[in-house]
Amino acid sequence: MKASTLQAKFIQIRSNKLFETFVVTVIIFSALLVGVKTYEISGTMYSMAKFLDWFISAFFLTEITIRFLAEHRKRDFFKSFWNLFDTLIVIISLIPADDTELALVARLVRVFRVLRMISIIPELRILLVSLIKALPQLGYVMLLMFIIFYIYAAVGSTLFATINPDLWGNIIISLLTLFRVMTFEDWTDVMYETMEVYPLSWIFYLSFIFFTAFAFLNMVIGIVVNVMEQENANARAEALEEEGEPSLKEISQQISQLQLQMLSMNDRKDA
Amino acid sequence: MKASTLQAKFIQIRSNKLFETFVVTVIIFSALLVGVKTYEISGTMYSMAKFLDWFISAFFLTEITIRFLAEHRKRDFFKSFWNLFDTLIVIISLIPADDTELALVARLVRVFRVLRMISIIPELRILLVSLIKALPQLGYVMLLMFIIFYIYAAVGSTLFATINPDLWGNIIISLLTLFRVMTFEDWTDVMYETMEVYPLSWIFYLSFIFFTAFAFLNMVIGIVVNVMEQENANARAEALEEEGEPSLKEISQQISQLQLQMLSMNDRKDA
Amino acid sequence: MKASTLQAKFIQIRSNKLFETFVVTVIIFSALLVGVKTYEISGTMYSMAKFLDWFISAFFLTEITIRFLAEHRKRDFFKSFWNLFDTLIVIISLIPADDTELALVARLVRVFRVLRMISIIPELRILLVSLIKALPQLGYVMLLMFIIFYIYAAVGSTLFATINPDLWGNIIISLLTLFRVMTFEDWTDVMYETMEVYPLSWIFYLSFIFFTAFAFLNMVIGIVVNVMEQENANARAEALEEEGEPSLKEISQQISQLQLQMLSMNDRKDA
Amino acid sequence: MKASTLQAKFIQIRSNKLFETFVVTVIIFSALLVGVKTYEISGTMYSMAKFLDWFISAFFLTEITIRFLAEHRKRDFFKSFWNLFDTLIVIISLIPADDTELALVARLVRVFRVLRMISIIPELRILLVSLIKALPQLGYVMLLMFIIFYIYAAVGSTLFATINPDLWGNIIISLLTLFRVMTFEDWTDVMYETMEVYPLSWIFYLSFIFFTAFAFLNMVIGIVVNVMEQENANARAEALEEEGEPSLKEISQQISQLQLQMLSMNDRKDA
Repeated sequence: MKASTLQAKFIQIRSNKLFETFVVTVIIFSALLVGVKTYEISGTMYSMAKFLDWFISAFFLTEITIRFLAEHRKRDFFKSFWNLFDTLIVIISLIPADDTELALVARLVRVFRVLRMISIIPELRILLVSLIKALPQLGYVMLLMFIIFYIYAAVGSTLFATINPDLWGNIIISLLTLFRVMTFEDWTDVMYETMEVYPLSWIFYLSFIFFTAFAFLNMVIGIVVNVMEQENANARAEALEEEGEPSLKEISQQISQLQLQMLSMNDRKDA
Repeated sequence: MKASTLQAKFIQIRSNKLFETFVVTVIIFSALLVGVKTYEISGTMYSMAKFLDWFISAFFLTEITIRFLAEHRKRDFFKSFWNLFDTLIVIISLIPADDTELALVARLVRVFRVLRMISIIPELRILLVSLIKALPQLGYVMLLMFIIFYIYAAVGSTLFATINPDLWGNIIISLLTLFRVMTFEDWTDVMYETMEVYPLSWIFYLSFIFFTAFAFLNMVIGIVVNVMEQENANARAEALEEEGEPSLKEISQQISQLQLQMLSMNDRKDA
Repeated sequence: MKASTLQAKFIQIRSNKLFETFVVTVIIFSALLVGVKTYEISGTMYSMAKFLDWFISAFFLTEITIRFLAEHRKRDFFKSFWNLFDTLIVIISLIPADDTELALVARLVRVFRVLRMISIIPELRILLVSLIKALPQLGYVMLLMFIIFYIYAAVGSTLFATINPDLWGNIIISLLTLFRVMTFEDWTDVMYETMEVYPLSWIFYLSFIFFTAFAFLNMVIGIVVNVMEQENANARAEALEEEGEPSLKEISQQISQLQLQMLSMNDRKDA
Repeated sequence: MKASTLQAKFIQIRSNKLFETFVVTVIIFSALLVGVKTYEISGTMYSMAKFLDWFISAFFLTEITIRFLAEHRKRDFFKSFWNLFDTLIVIISLIPADDTELALVARLVRVFRVLRMISIIPELRILLVSLIKALPQLGYVMLLMFIIFYIYAAVGSTLFATINPDLWGNIIISLLTLFRVMTFEDWTDVMYETMEVYPLSWIFYLSFIFFTAFAFLNMVIGIVVNVMEQENANARAEALEEEGEPSLKEISQQISQLQLQMLSMNDRKDA
């Protein structure tokens, strides 16, 4: 009975507007702290930052515990992706930052607390989910793009490895170089270098740029068309449901009914 | 009574087409003057420019005074954003440019007179208002983008600060460097430098480029979809109003009425 | 009478498919000749090129003369923009290329013969006309963009002229530098240079990039929306005309007629 | 009769799911092998790679033979583009890689085996076909773009060849330089160089950028509009077929029928 009252208390805390605002404030604060720590800071500031760090960790742990305890069926808590996400971030950021060997890792992990901003703001969560949903539809275009990249990287490292091993040494380095060419980042420097040995190698670069640009364009159009189809479907569904408009089929049936009615009327009169 | 005749005069001036054209001419002239002053000019030219500057200031002051006096209720004058905008620009540009310490500031302020071009041309005003209205809808995508930037900047300044403090010294500098990477501006130079210490740091840059490109794409699509929804809504509203087309619902009701009429006719005949 | 037969002959030539093909061939040939002349060529080749040049000039002159003589009302010939365009190109390319002083100009003018490709292929002509028609709609966005550029150029040349006169010397040079920044071409080099004197000058560049990117986005969306509105209007017009579909209004009227008919039937029965 | 049973066997093999999966596995494996060979590998690894290479060649040859023999009418086999595509790749990759002179060519050819990934995955095949179908519609915009490029290249190599022959030596090099300018790759370096001799040559570059950007924008819009028209047409066709909705015309005819029926009813009553 006492446990039940405690849980009611926890649920009350979780749903409290003030508590929510405080959680967001602490997250923003932890983000600022991450930023401040990238500056060279004095000893006093350092101890203060360390204390704040400890406080934020403790607070996040408390908050996640409250949310866990407020859950009626404990199993449901881990069914939500965002609960798992939060728990993981909180647990990982408990790694002590004092150990000199793990210090860098611990500092990096603390950065990811900023990601809790996404889990706490519903609009960002929806945005992220819709971004991730758009990914699989791009699957085949991405595969095609990877095949283009792979073939050009293989050709590039076969032909140009001896010219500049830093750019074309093996297939991984070549893939990176090709990504650079796709972003137009000093791509002519790369080209002019190989053109001294193979004067026609500009065909390699230009054809690569055309193929990737074309595949990229196709990807963008694919997304736009997809988004618009959904919009149109939504618009049509809305138009039908909200305004209570009958379909043309229903009107056609109404007229047919009228016709039958008239015929029966005629029959009765004849009778 | 005299004041009233004066005000009528002012209103007459304000609405005068010639006066408006003259105001636009003076604004274009002040813009040209700003341009000319960036060239090295002779002493005579300099005094002339100074005189013109004084004349434009005086003219703008007169014009804004006329517009103020022409207003029936003085309070309404400051309710218009564009009146405030104009008044502010005119008042600020009255700061004397002679004082050597304030000379630079005064010269800069005179540049903003060119902005009056926007307040005087209605089409530009509408364009700007519609641009600003589009901003809040982008709010959450921008917040998501900022979170991505912030996390990468924190990671970047944690890992790479010792490699190149000019690029990764603290979180503000890192944010600037990441913006540079996003514009593909010599981003490989930044990457190759850190790859010498952390050979796998290309993952940092490539993942950042993918995330921002994806968020950016999402933003553009969001705007396009939004614009198109409005267009479709307008088109539908126009179609309904202008052509006087009945809805399918109204037609369905017409047929139902016909049916009832027929039934009543039938009843009367039976009677 | 003899003149009339001649003109009939000319019209016959002008409409001849073979003649048209030959004109296109000569234009492509003149384009290739322009290309060949950019290579260092031997003496024999040079005289041949010169002869071909002369032949093309003579042929184009003949062709334009035939088209002029084939026109029934001579005045109509000059009413067509493309006739004027062709005549101008042909006349200008008659300037002798031998005079050493005018040699360069004469060579440049011969390049523009390639433009006749546009006037001879109807699809290209339509494409160009539609491109030009899209321009005025962009007018105000372009004006807004120019105002942004002008203000930033004025501020830039006021503040940075002493730092690097090559980039910010006067307002024209500054406009060019800002265009460079907008294309992201080594823009950080420009920024880092001024940041040494004004550490906060990154605000200048970033705000400029945001404003122009935003205005540019607006421009692109404006074009897309415009194109789509036209498409939708075309689609609606087609749907109405080609399929012979009645409007909902006409159907509503049909039903009303039916109702009246029924009433009159009722009245007659009562009578 | 024996041949017929063999063919049945071959058809069975070809349609076997396990066989298909194995073919895809071998293709992915051959792609990985191409990647591995770009690394410096030990003697043992080299012999193994050579053996694997031989195995893949043999396997591909067997597979294509099975598919050929499984075809009922041998002529039909070569009617499919993808069969020809596969056969060509398999035959070319049979060239022995031992001959030192042809070694490089043979290695390059083996890279193209990765392309079999496209012919084996139906979704990629459809994607590629739709990409190629989109090309002819872009034909005239591409021609216009080429004419712009050609004219600017001719003017560039006429004016700037003496300034920097590496960039403007002849028309082919100039076309390459202009493509570089279009990608904004260090385009200001190119411009500043020529501006020292011709101070107004920035007009050349800026007008070129505007023309190509405008033509490019037109191309993108052209594709988007085209894609959307098809989408709308599909949506309309679907709406009509799937939901069995009558057209407004059919409803109008129904009402007319009703009217006639009523008239005949009236006549009978009068009679």
